[in-house]
Amino acid sequence: MSGTPVSHAQHPPHGHPNNTAPSTQNVDRASTASHPPTEKPDPTTYPSHGAQGGLAAANASGPAELSSLKVNLRSALRQFPDFPLPGILFEDIMPIFADHAHFTNLMRALELQVAAAFNTTVGEKSGIDVVVGLESRGFLFGPTLALRLGAGFVPVRKQGKLPGKCVTEGYQKEYGTDYFQVQEGSIKPGQKVIIVDDIIATGKS
Amino acid sequence: MSGTPVSHAQHPPHGHPNNTAPSTQNVDRASTASHPPTEKPDPTTYPSHGAQGGLAAANASGPAELSSLKVNLRSALRQFPDFPLPGILFEDIMPIFADHAHFTNLMRALELQVAAAFNTTVGEKSGIDVVVGLESRGFLFGPTLALRLGAGFVPVRKQGKLPGKCVTEGYQKEYGTDYFQVQEGSIKPGQKVIIVDDIIATGKS
Repeated sequence: MSGTPVSHAQHPPHGHPNNTAPSTQNVDRASTASHPPTEKPDPTTYPSHGAQGGLAAANASGPAELSSLKVNLRSALRQFPDFPLPGILFEDIMPIFADHAHFTNLMRALELQVAAAFNTTVGEKSGIDVVVGLESRGFLFGPTLALRLGAGFVPVRKQGKLPGKCVTEGYQKEYGTDYFQVQEGSIKPGQKVIIVDDIIATGKS
Repeated sequence: MSGTPVSHAQHPPHGHPNNTAPSTQNVDRASTASHPPTEKPDPTTYPSHGAQGGLAAANASGPAELSSLKVNLRSALRQFPDFPLPGILFEDIMPIFADHAHFTNLMRALELQVAAAFNTTVGEKSGIDVVVGLESRGFLFGPTLALRLGAGFVPVRKQGKLPGKCVTEGYQKEYGTDYFQVQEGSIKPGQKVIIVDDIIATGKS
């Protein structure tokens, strides 16, 4: 997978998020990725199942918290111009995983995003049965997300890596066609599934 | 990566763990992967940091719990003879990730294993700064483990996938040499690091 061409305006340099929404900016100043505010519960201690006392307040501010987290996470990205090809600005997501506070924020943001998409609250049963993740970067956060949502994780891998009967689908790469596979029977009819690939829209997969 | 040749005796078929230790077997009967005993705390709710009341009892039975979890997890593996090559019995780990209860048990087992190796208790600060995971299967559980240990996650990827300056190391595959890379500076001098590849010893990497 490769990065997509994006303008620098869309992705401000590290430490200087170019956020134009004043209210979110204020939240961001009060809550950097490395120094979460003490009044917020530690997101790493959220259970996967069941609403608990104390979550209601955090959920009430879900959209503002999500905006703040996105600004913080974006500022943690590293930009590499002309990688892997000339003209492409590669957004490196690895600094987020390398830092425990950033990574914790990422998972919190993903939980909030899923809760918003499915009209639930974080910690409440999501109703999602399976998180499908694409090799390789979808493996970095897909399984953790699945655990938190009370779901299973099913990988989509490059052809020839999964044993047993597989369903195969082709996709276009820079040169020619490549194939993805998922194991037959790993997703049951009627199950609610979400698919994760990369934090940022990249690649051809 | 490919599976390693193992005997069937080492890896009993699904649902029939061939465990010869009576005490562990009893624990196993009382606690299947899909139906954890109610007297045990839900492992998904364990915080990443800080000892809490109620953990002491679980930790006191760490070795027995770990043995039980291993039997359960082993019974969840699927065997595929002659994959990817004739004569190789491929141990498929994907059923563990596809099932939320198995996956939860896997992470609990890994936490217990790390705690035993570093003489700490689960939930206590592990002192581990970085979990390094090898592409791709090390990505499936390495990041989750890092979050739980209060550590960061640093990926080792196939050559050409990581941007920026990288440290490169070759390794022998079936045919010729392949190369792994890790980003320079992603691990600082003096940091305590654990490396995860696959749940089972496989492949040539």
